[in-house]
Amino acid sequence: MNPNIPSRVKLVDVGPRDGLQNEKHPVPAAVKIELVHRLQQAGLKEIEVTSYVSPKWVPQMADNHEVMQGITRMPGVRYSVLTPNLKGWEAAVLDKPDEIVVFGAASEAFSQKNINCSIAESIERFAPVVEAARAAGVYVRGAMSCTVGCPYEGEIAPERVEYLAGLMKGIGVQHIGVADTIGVGTPRKVQRAIEATLKHYDLNDVSGHFHDTYGQALANTLAALELGVWQFDTSVAGLGGCPYAKGATGNVATEDVVYMLHGMGIETGIDLDQLIDAGAYISDFLGRKPQSRVAVAVLTKRKG
Amino acid sequence: MNPNIPSRVKLVDVGPRDGLQNEKHPVPAAVKIELVHRLQQAGLKEIEVTSYVSPKWVPQMADNHEVMQGITRMPGVRYSVLTPNLKGWEAAVLDKPDEIVVFGAASEAFSQKNINCSIAESIERFAPVVEAARAAGVYVRGAMSCTVGCPYEGEIAPERVEYLAGLMKGIGVQHIGVADTIGVGTPRKVQRAIEATLKHYDLNDVSGHFHDTYGQALANTLAALELGVWQFDTSVAGLGGCPYAKGATGNVATEDVVYMLHGMGIETGIDLDQLIDAGAYISDFLGRKPQSRVAVAVLTKRKG
Repeated sequence: MNPNIPSRVKLVDVGPRDGLQNEKHPVPAAVKIELVHRLQQAGLKEIEVTSYVSPKWVPQMADNHEVMQGITRMPGVRYSVLTPNLKGWEAAVLDKPDEIVVFGAASEAFSQKNINCSIAESIERFAPVVEAARAAGVYVRGAMSCTVGCPYEGEIAPERVEYLAGLMKGIGVQHIGVADTIGVGTPRKVQRAIEATLKHYDLNDVSGHFHDTYGQALANTLAALELGVWQFDTSVAGLGGCPYAKGATGNVATEDVVYMLHGMGIETGIDLDQLIDAGAYISDFLGRKPQSRVAVAVLTKRKG
Repeated sequence: MNPNIPSRVKLVDVGPRDGLQNEKHPVPAAVKIELVHRLQQAGLKEIEVTSYVSPKWVPQMADNHEVMQGITRMPGVRYSVLTPNLKGWEAAVLDKPDEIVVFGAASEAFSQKNINCSIAESIERFAPVVEAARAAGVYVRGAMSCTVGCPYEGEIAPERVEYLAGLMKGIGVQHIGVADTIGVGTPRKVQRAIEATLKHYDLNDVSGHFHDTYGQALANTLAALELGVWQFDTSVAGLGGCPYAKGATGNVATEDVVYMLHGMGIETGIDLDQLIDAGAYISDFLGRKPQSRVAVAVLTKRKG
């Protein structure tokens, strides 16, 4: 086996934010808080909790203050939030997040359609947010979407990823996530996107964020591990779906990633059974089966 | 990327046999024949068509003669069948298969529960079948089940796989498949099972057969590719389910494997769109969605 593969991996569960943001019917703050509590109880050391976006655009996250204020924080756990602009940052800072997340797309077409400006403009707009956060001692994470493929442009060249990573580095983003937003990536393509990112960021400041729409997320995770990547975003119960293919899978399920990592002898600090319980809790609330093959197999087995 | 990874892969679609064998309601011969035709049209070069087992035990395959006789064979395509004993072989040979499949479990408990004899006894019983087939110029494939885990014994040591592979070699089995029958394997464990097999078989005579019950099949396929394995069993639309965890996934979907391989620049000779059509055909007949994330994503996209 490849000697670059790390012996320990850190997972960031993005379910409460990236996942629940795609739910048609907003989930009550109390349920979100309980989900965060269950995730930290299961051993997650970082959780993406909410975002500070206009409730007109994302009503699902209108309860951001309530959720952030309602969480009983656990020592050693980090709580991150999405801040799309300075107004979002100003609202977020009141709730004392450990990290903020800013974002950009590696695809011009996606940037235009999604946030109505060029990639370069979108990053420029984030500059004052990053500056303010760093001045306040809050860590800044950048999320690069569409690093492998784009629903409008198709395949994305690694050079586009390198360009975006450079822009992020330029405004002071400290950590960068390489996201395959529509899940079209396969192992070699994902490795190329990561290698492009490594031209601007140290391996310790890079994470992978893979979607399972085409069932490739675990193979892509393995491919990233082989480059030494040891940080990944995942979503409990595969929360999130795929806004570009209704009915298809979105974020890779935390359960499936943990199962693979533990099976490979890689530590995560996560208790898989408790994690499955957390996923079952939110899936029950949403009235559906977890989008995690591990959860489905284990829950079926438990029923005997 | 690992230089061992092959540039061309051969897939054996086991859907018509291994898949449809697990259907509660037998599928009509005409539908099976149409499925085989669609698979070869899509570019599959080998198809596991049926088995010659007592219809008392496996009524789903009682139409073996009808199916094998009903197929319009395509030059360059190989048709294999399962033959559990000499009686099965004698029935099979009338239908002129290109290959027969014999099987054994790497787990003693599984062997006892499944076929009521020890591993060594089960292989001895196959010796006359293998001898007869080879005398008739029919190629013999061995399928090793439970090479990573067993529903009764738990984890299976690589030494048990080596032992079984040695027994298979001893009776003249020409090609060997390393199966993770219950889908519990992860990349390193699967590599160990393959390495154990390679003590008796040449790389060119080894194939991987992974189940997706825990979502690990593509990661395991990637891990096998990295050892140079270039032959895999897969099942269109993920036909098969998992008899040990009702409602869970069984065989990895051919569509998902083809998508990954093509994405990695590995040739298969298969047309993914036609393959998805073949999977949609049989899934429609069975009244459910394909158990393939690629098929679900592509079919959803086609609908617009």
